[in-house]
Amino acid sequence: MGVDVQTEDSAIRALVGRWVEAACAKDLDGVMACYAPEVVAFDAIAALRFEGTEAYRKHWEYCMGFAEGEMIMRIPDMDITVGGDIAFCHYLANCGCTDTAGNERTGWMRGTVCLRRIDGRWLIDHEHYSVPFDPETMKVMTELQP
Amino acid sequence: MGVDVQTEDSAIRALVGRWVEAACAKDLDGVMACYAPEVVAFDAIAALRFEGTEAYRKHWEYCMGFAEGEMIMRIPDMDITVGGDIAFCHYLANCGCTDTAGNERTGWMRGTVCLRRIDGRWLIDHEHYSVPFDPETMKVMTELQP
Repeated sequence: MGVDVQTEDSAIRALVGRWVEAACAKDLDGVMACYAPEVVAFDAIAALRFEGTEAYRKHWEYCMGFAEGEMIMRIPDMDITVGGDIAFCHYLANCGCTDTAGNERTGWMRGTVCLRRIDGRWLIDHEHYSVPFDPETMKVMTELQP
Repeated sequence: MGVDVQTEDSAIRALVGRWVEAACAKDLDGVMACYAPEVVAFDAIAALRFEGTEAYRKHWEYCMGFAEGEMIMRIPDMDITVGGDIAFCHYLANCGCTDTAGNERTGWMRGTVCLRRIDGRWLIDHEHYSVPFDPETMKVMTELQP
């Protein structure tokens, strides 16, 4: 059976859209519904790797608690490649939160999302988020602009 | 045509193996031979994104100059998913270099590599390397162990 790239591309964009919406709403169940049970995640903060939804859910809970006000995540553009029942996509995301005074505090992050179509439904099998660092100071470069 | 997952898995492992060998030998041409022309890379240091082999080659040249002595890259284990003519794989890599006294200075990094099979040959279409950071200090956590 051939792959209708356009259809699958749209389905993946919809999934990432639901994920962003859930993250911004601090809807933990909504975020977790986007992951395959055996997800392996490389998140931008705190640990090298999270394996499985139980461990990753705890991390997401911590992240949602960390955001002072509203969570912000904007993905202006996304590159998607589909092949059969797998796909990968990557993008730059403007992420952060509002502080107690209501001011936006955001920076740019890189996101890579690898997906599987399981029983006709796309789910995130692996994801990788990060901010590059300056090897002189070992600090992350939160001031970079695309 | 079906995909012989075992064969493709081996071909991808061989490609990553050549890439590691070239990186450790500071063989710039050898490293660059592993990339698709339109590669988009999110590297661990210095910039948000590199687009195309010309830009990425310059960055690799900078990285190879940055390593004082020999470059070190060890990938104990790798998870590969193949679907038709695309694939993705992820791993933890122990990376660094030897200093002027010959001592190893390494840390753990996360790697995600997304590939395409172009004219029967696997090439890296997208890669993402990073070290997680501590949101309290904004410094990368180079001391983490898998």
